[in-house]
Amino acid sequence: MKQKNFISKALCALLACAACTGVSAQQKEYPKQEQMRPGMSEYWTPQPKIVTPGEASERAAVSAPSDAIVLFDGKDLSAWESPKGEPARWIVKDGAFTVDKKTGDIQTKQKFENYQLHIEWRIPENITGTNQGRGNSGVFMQGQYEIQILDCYNNETYVNGQTGSVYKQTPPLVNAMRKPGEWNVYDIIYSAPIFKEDGTYRIPPYVTVIQNGVLLQNHTAILGTTEYIGFPKVVKHGAGPISLQSHGDPSPAISFRNVWIREL
Amino acid sequence: MKQKNFISKALCALLACAACTGVSAQQKEYPKQEQMRPGMSEYWTPQPKIVTPGEASERAAVSAPSDAIVLFDGKDLSAWESPKGEPARWIVKDGAFTVDKKTGDIQTKQKFENYQLHIEWRIPENITGTNQGRGNSGVFMQGQYEIQILDCYNNETYVNGQTGSVYKQTPPLVNAMRKPGEWNVYDIIYSAPIFKEDGTYRIPPYVTVIQNGVLLQNHTAILGTTEYIGFPKVVKHGAGPISLQSHGDPSPAISFRNVWIREL
Amino acid sequence: MKQKNFISKALCALLACAACTGVSAQQKEYPKQEQMRPGMSEYWTPQPKIVTPGEASERAAVSAPSDAIVLFDGKDLSAWESPKGEPARWIVKDGAFTVDKKTGDIQTKQKFENYQLHIEWRIPENITGTNQGRGNSGVFMQGQYEIQILDCYNNETYVNGQTGSVYKQTPPLVNAMRKPGEWNVYDIIYSAPIFKEDGTYRIPPYVTVIQNGVLLQNHTAILGTTEYIGFPKVVKHGAGPISLQSHGDPSPAISFRNVWIREL
Amino acid sequence: MKQKNFISKALCALLACAACTGVSAQQKEYPKQEQMRPGMSEYWTPQPKIVTPGEASERAAVSAPSDAIVLFDGKDLSAWESPKGEPARWIVKDGAFTVDKKTGDIQTKQKFENYQLHIEWRIPENITGTNQGRGNSGVFMQGQYEIQILDCYNNETYVNGQTGSVYKQTPPLVNAMRKPGEWNVYDIIYSAPIFKEDGTYRIPPYVTVIQNGVLLQNHTAILGTTEYIGFPKVVKHGAGPISLQSHGDPSPAISFRNVWIREL
Repeated sequence: MKQKNFISKALCALLACAACTGVSAQQKEYPKQEQMRPGMSEYWTPQPKIVTPGEASERAAVSAPSDAIVLFDGKDLSAWESPKGEPARWIVKDGAFTVDKKTGDIQTKQKFENYQLHIEWRIPENITGTNQGRGNSGVFMQGQYEIQILDCYNNETYVNGQTGSVYKQTPPLVNAMRKPGEWNVYDIIYSAPIFKEDGTYRIPPYVTVIQNGVLLQNHTAILGTTEYIGFPKVVKHGAGPISLQSHGDPSPAISFRNVWIREL
Repeated sequence: MKQKNFISKALCALLACAACTGVSAQQKEYPKQEQMRPGMSEYWTPQPKIVTPGEASERAAVSAPSDAIVLFDGKDLSAWESPKGEPARWIVKDGAFTVDKKTGDIQTKQKFENYQLHIEWRIPENITGTNQGRGNSGVFMQGQYEIQILDCYNNETYVNGQTGSVYKQTPPLVNAMRKPGEWNVYDIIYSAPIFKEDGTYRIPPYVTVIQNGVLLQNHTAILGTTEYIGFPKVVKHGAGPISLQSHGDPSPAISFRNVWIREL
Repeated sequence: MKQKNFISKALCALLACAACTGVSAQQKEYPKQEQMRPGMSEYWTPQPKIVTPGEASERAAVSAPSDAIVLFDGKDLSAWESPKGEPARWIVKDGAFTVDKKTGDIQTKQKFENYQLHIEWRIPENITGTNQGRGNSGVFMQGQYEIQILDCYNNETYVNGQTGSVYKQTPPLVNAMRKPGEWNVYDIIYSAPIFKEDGTYRIPPYVTVIQNGVLLQNHTAILGTTEYIGFPKVVKHGAGPISLQSHGDPSPAISFRNVWIREL
Repeated sequence: MKQKNFISKALCALLACAACTGVSAQQKEYPKQEQMRPGMSEYWTPQPKIVTPGEASERAAVSAPSDAIVLFDGKDLSAWESPKGEPARWIVKDGAFTVDKKTGDIQTKQKFENYQLHIEWRIPENITGTNQGRGNSGVFMQGQYEIQILDCYNNETYVNGQTGSVYKQTPPLVNAMRKPGEWNVYDIIYSAPIFKEDGTYRIPPYVTVIQNGVLLQNHTAILGTTEYIGFPKVVKHGAGPISLQSHGDPSPAISFRNVWIREL
């Protein structure tokens, strides 16, 4: 969830409906789309079934295949930067890196289109907070489309904001969380949208998400950007980075490890 | 647009996000999705390009093929009924039938799943009103999903509420209206959704719409019901009728003729 | 059907399986795919249901919409050329043009990607021959993918070679032929493939075909080129012309009129 | 690959083209589709890129999630039977089971439609043979559609018959084999076809295959049955078992373990 950004987003003149439009505000004479509140795009039922994932060895998953680009090898964040192009300042320790909430989001220097992404993440054992304020982060496809990360182990929230949701669009098929303190694994298959000249999708983005070996999203069509407020927006873009979110909530920060990507 | 029904719809406990859910209200403990206002799902730009369709002969299009079910042959409404199963009381005259706004919507007695539908409609020459209050009606796929009908000849409205829109979802590719007093032709190819057991779509409905020989919707995925207020809803259903809307606005009533359907 | 070309095609070292490959023959050490015979990709049952299309007025369909590119206006073939870039020498007369079998195929000078195409064609009243030797022609999408044209009025052939088939791939849903001497109408919606870097399809081409107001192909995925012999081939290409086939059979030549296209 | 069955298959009167047909032989008067030879549907280039998968711990992957149906728990084949409904007689030892080539294919007693399947398999360290005669087996979706299993570690074959191919249809994106003697892991996401009344696909089957954490098939449309000889066939079917192939080649038999499935 991208709460801290919502004011600047609210300034966007018009929000665009799913799968429709690249809206420009140049024609002043038209009525404006009415502003929504966040709770209008949040729903809480039915809560996805809880599935206990299989046991994993300490090496939670396989290491990078030979054709993968290793985005984090346990040692440094040299593949990452801030959105402004400054060095990524999250904290590297013990083969993992942890969000530094003072320094904001980070993203890969390299940009991608179609890929298979492997990323492991851990909610700290001493996590606090409730709802969206408990271990909130997210991984963004092409810097646009968020697959939510949240502590959903014994923590309920709106279902289209759960771990593994296409944020505020499509809930996960099930809830396959490991306990705080244990590593979760995301295996994500993503294909970039194809745009028409007018900025709308000829082919939308598609995403498959597997968490801890359990399918959460099965070739789900993404309807547009994953907005905190209002409808998804369809805005033309090219190749983009993998982004990780530094969320503004006060709960203890989450960690990542074993990040690699294979271009398809 | 289904304005007159919106109060009862507003009583639905929870509105469901696009492509996601069959929501039940049985769990009282969860927060409710906040109620939206109609203007939140209306946007006005960019207005689709205006295309003048080709000239048509007086027989605007071909008559029914040999394998079609003729839903109106110019003589009577015996294939139609009210939603309560009473006789359809719209006015048959001169080989066409005209909405009788006192008597409400009508729908086919027969229910359908996958089909090719041909239907012609005419905005009366003396049409009045503006925006959605000018010749408003709609044809519903399986009684659920509205393809909008409206006088969009020299009449602007929000683009996802124009003629040929999947109402409040996807605008038409272009505006191909004929003048009031002339017959418009819809050729619609529709495939029914396939539902999972949990009431969500395994495969969504798809629709292709051609108006006056000009493509408006090209195999567009329908995200859920076409709601006047809020997000589309995904609600499990079976075969359903073709419904025609009697809209509450005070403008002169529109007419239909040459209605046939081929099951696919 | 592209019978006269099959010898040069047979010289292609390797035929590629559906939806798979851009095959090169540079590695000499591998076994070659065995050569097929034409009859191996022809099947005759079940024959599609015969549907009599609706009556049409003499102007069989609407004229070109305002945003269409008119490819034949009844007067000359200035929008067309031979595959070698020479003038198109088919015979223009009485607002139509007729294949001149001595001069070979013709194609549009302009190249296209995604479009709606309208084209009318007529089997001559004095048609002779049987099977594929009776009024055979075809319209090619991007110069690659043939929608078959054939006299299928009281003339049987293999079903994946009938009028409206994606040639030797997908038969039409029904047989909606008009009699020899009457005009048939094709309304075709086509979207170009998107290729991966390796020359295979990321997204295949899709086609919808309506003949005389009756649906023949409904958003059908095209598997590759429409080969006379063997499996479809997947070969990377860009924008391409609309091509019309001059078939080698000795039956009287067919005619075309009212050809226009709208880019999507 | 289903070599040993090909004679009875060859007796089928007519083979049906991809994505088209449920062919019946009742009309004797039509020409028959000409019989193909196996090599006509085999091609050898381009060979997929070789990718070395990541290292795995001895527990190659996670164990079954809580909602999975365990199809083999290391102890017995009680979830399996022969195609005739007799007990499955493959050899259980050391937490794995091994093909007994004398006793033929086995299949699950339970039938499935849409699912996520996890299955691990091992080519024996002493494997012999070449091409398709080296560790050949396969796992069939709904008893119809084979995902090939073969020793492709330093063993070349036609690319649409490699490990991870939809057999004789779509090659794998890459070759991600582990060495003979090591366990390979398949994670497969499958959705069943939806048929029209005439026996053709309304929606084809789709399959995603991940081998050893590396993507081989990404939501690939399956064109029909995976035939040893000729085109895929489209034949109406309902829920079906997971089948494992006992292949007739003389090379040492392969083993399986850790088999579970989650219905979707």
